[in-house]
Amino acid sequence: MAESQRRGVCVVIGAGDGLGAAVARAFAREGLAAVVTRRPRHLDALETLAETIRAAGGDAHAFGLDARNEADVVAFFSEVERSIGPIEVVVFNIGANVRFPVVETTAQVYSKVWEMGAFAGFLAGREAARAMAPRGRGTVLFTGATASLRGGAGFSAFAGAKHALRALAQSLARELGPKGIHVAHIVIDGAIDGAFIRSLMPDAAEKRGREEILVPDAIAKNYVWLHRQERSAWTFEMDLRPWTESF
Amino acid sequence: MAESQRRGVCVVIGAGDGLGAAVARAFAREGLAAVVTRRPRHLDALETLAETIRAAGGDAHAFGLDARNEADVVAFFSEVERSIGPIEVVVFNIGANVRFPVVETTAQVYSKVWEMGAFAGFLAGREAARAMAPRGRGTVLFTGATASLRGGAGFSAFAGAKHALRALAQSLARELGPKGIHVAHIVIDGAIDGAFIRSLMPDAAEKRGREEILVPDAIAKNYVWLHRQERSAWTFEMDLRPWTESF
Amino acid sequence: MAESQRRGVCVVIGAGDGLGAAVARAFAREGLAAVVTRRPRHLDALETLAETIRAAGGDAHAFGLDARNEADVVAFFSEVERSIGPIEVVVFNIGANVRFPVVETTAQVYSKVWEMGAFAGFLAGREAARAMAPRGRGTVLFTGATASLRGGAGFSAFAGAKHALRALAQSLARELGPKGIHVAHIVIDGAIDGAFIRSLMPDAAEKRGREEILVPDAIAKNYVWLHRQERSAWTFEMDLRPWTESF
Amino acid sequence: MAESQRRGVCVVIGAGDGLGAAVARAFAREGLAAVVTRRPRHLDALETLAETIRAAGGDAHAFGLDARNEADVVAFFSEVERSIGPIEVVVFNIGANVRFPVVETTAQVYSKVWEMGAFAGFLAGREAARAMAPRGRGTVLFTGATASLRGGAGFSAFAGAKHALRALAQSLARELGPKGIHVAHIVIDGAIDGAFIRSLMPDAAEKRGREEILVPDAIAKNYVWLHRQERSAWTFEMDLRPWTESF
Repeated sequence: MAESQRRGVCVVIGAGDGLGAAVARAFAREGLAAVVTRRPRHLDALETLAETIRAAGGDAHAFGLDARNEADVVAFFSEVERSIGPIEVVVFNIGANVRFPVVETTAQVYSKVWEMGAFAGFLAGREAARAMAPRGRGTVLFTGATASLRGGAGFSAFAGAKHALRALAQSLARELGPKGIHVAHIVIDGAIDGAFIRSLMPDAAEKRGREEILVPDAIAKNYVWLHRQERSAWTFEMDLRPWTESF
Repeated sequence: MAESQRRGVCVVIGAGDGLGAAVARAFAREGLAAVVTRRPRHLDALETLAETIRAAGGDAHAFGLDARNEADVVAFFSEVERSIGPIEVVVFNIGANVRFPVVETTAQVYSKVWEMGAFAGFLAGREAARAMAPRGRGTVLFTGATASLRGGAGFSAFAGAKHALRALAQSLARELGPKGIHVAHIVIDGAIDGAFIRSLMPDAAEKRGREEILVPDAIAKNYVWLHRQERSAWTFEMDLRPWTESF
Repeated sequence: MAESQRRGVCVVIGAGDGLGAAVARAFAREGLAAVVTRRPRHLDALETLAETIRAAGGDAHAFGLDARNEADVVAFFSEVERSIGPIEVVVFNIGANVRFPVVETTAQVYSKVWEMGAFAGFLAGREAARAMAPRGRGTVLFTGATASLRGGAGFSAFAGAKHALRALAQSLARELGPKGIHVAHIVIDGAIDGAFIRSLMPDAAEKRGREEILVPDAIAKNYVWLHRQERSAWTFEMDLRPWTESF
Repeated sequence: MAESQRRGVCVVIGAGDGLGAAVARAFAREGLAAVVTRRPRHLDALETLAETIRAAGGDAHAFGLDARNEADVVAFFSEVERSIGPIEVVVFNIGANVRFPVVETTAQVYSKVWEMGAFAGFLAGREAARAMAPRGRGTVLFTGATASLRGGAGFSAFAGAKHALRALAQSLARELGPKGIHVAHIVIDGAIDGAFIRSLMPDAAEKRGREEILVPDAIAKNYVWLHRQERSAWTFEMDLRPWTESF
């Protein structure tokens, strides 16, 4: 099939939470093929997500992927370009929000949080750049957090990874913008509705009803918006928080 | 006419440049009545803008207004609410980009730049808050610039006003968000296409063709987008720059 | 008397609080003549401060000055240079920490806070530049606050002035550094011990004993330190807060 | 020997450049025992530094240390506390300023720069916290750079490490301040005089003569100053740049 006839692809690295799934669904509704990844052991759940997207008339493909493994990430991008379609959008959405006092933070935790939250983002961003640069277009979106901008007490590991990811996004934006590739960083400030937050917050359903916690589908619309921006007016960074969130 | 039957209003304070006009047109296309203001001596040009909007099927009203005069601003907001409709959106778009070494900056210049760029923004923001708070909804958008974030050499006056305006936007966002009013600040980084830039930049038309300078209509779409955001995921600040702009 | 024999001067604009007084004393101990100003109606209290400095063996001069009046400020700098000595240091220390919801902030309050906190700083900074530039040396220090960096709810006026002052300091630093003049901005984050805070905070004396509120003499040492920095390694901005302050 | 009789220690992790050496000398002049580390293969050069300090009447000890090895770092801190004295100051000074376009950055480079610039900083900061917390005092200083605040084109690896280090410093400051431990981050903006810069910059000696590049001894005085600050007025962050540096 000729390149021009193949459907463009949106890759979501880290589609294991409500946001990653919502972003994949949103881009699928735009007509892109959603390629979603999680660690291989969660492939069943990921297949369910892809199935849901297909049931709604979209195109979706699930890949188990260790996003911290360079060879695997390189092979994954090649495989997607070869067998699915040209990658138009890459969303990096892996986080690892842990909280420990620094004296109780092990070297293993500190390293692993960085590997997931920053090193994997580097691999994804680099492979996105390699795939998109020859075509002179594409969008790379990084999910940030409050910790991207502030190293709070107890957050040495998480904030370290998130700060590094933001630095990466800035470097990429400055390198790739003039090559036609739009790189942006979304700072999400507040609790996101989902199974995790509902287990922690007894009144999450009430808050969701009042839109006092972030609704994944509402966030995802902004990812699509960034992809649609005309190149005379691109955003590098935007924040998102509920109307009632103090900041 | 009952409140529910009246068309919502978008007020654009400072519709004298290409951006202000584009924002007014964009909100008019969304179905809001565009109320545009400039200093009274430019009322003729403003009427032309309103006429253009009406010719395209929109609703528009031109007001000569000294946005630095408290009594006039208070009266203007009352008049709009009374005679046109409920104010849904206020866009504050006055700037005064001057450049002088600090030792050559007169007290008059320093004051006037602040009056136009910050004090007028305070009056607009306050009256917007007063109009919108009883209804528990509305959007207030402030146009920022690179100088909102950085006091460059020669920019003591302009950066002072723009920093003050950003502080105002932050204070307003924190006060009004929980009342249902969305306040946002857009940092525009780069030259905006228009008569002014075309007089300064010989190759502006070529740059416009390549989207290397900001296109007012492209910027304006982002103002509309901010107004449309669902309240579970509101943006306070986003930047906009051309794909080729270094930053 | 030849220029070389005259004592260098440290001007403190706004020596009406504990910090301004401490800074004046600290520079007087360094051998500079302290020239302290407040609004004319507080001249008696200011004379007492000057007397204290002289009693400790320093040199000090009190001037009633409306720091918002351009002609008065220009005349004051000339008078100091002519009759006292070459100005080596200017410290701008006027603030006006008021707190009102934006809808309750009058145009008069918003303007006055800016006149005191930003416009007066512009006049002082500009006249400092004019006095120092021909000699190719000097130090200009601006007192900032948490509100210099953050527009909190209720702080539209104060944060507006403080943001504008920080923009001014940045512009000045970039313009004057290469002329040999060191411009710096000190962000003071927390309550400063003094009569005002002791009236508000019942346990201020206990906190002072534990150094949990800022001690003016401790702050002032940092102003002197900035003046002493060698020009290969100048600081533009530093923050100061008590060890127990959360931030 | 009783604890009270032992000399306090300043540990400098990464004393392999001009700045690390200058900081060690400066604290030794203050009467602290300087404990300097570099990678084991540079132990000879490090011994020379220690010898120089001792020749000037100070106390100094050289340790070969792989600062990225958790067990080695833990053992090193124990050994210093046991055999030399209570650690009063820890300076983390390892950087790895590399520059590559992101598509040419290998996973190995990206990882190694982070291990040296951020992970080693985490280990040093954590062990400093463990040593100092029981005594309720101490100072931990991190050397930052322009890349701590900005991810420039070509700097995805270096800026990532430096951003992560700054996040660490912030987290530590917030956790340890209320325990009496002063944590600060110094943003060094500009070329530092030394063998490296002299090999790259033909006119480095002339610039040094005019103080247009950072002089290590001038920087080091600021590290000592931060250690001396009274705890009612601690600095978390300060920048340092030559008077002629544009920023």
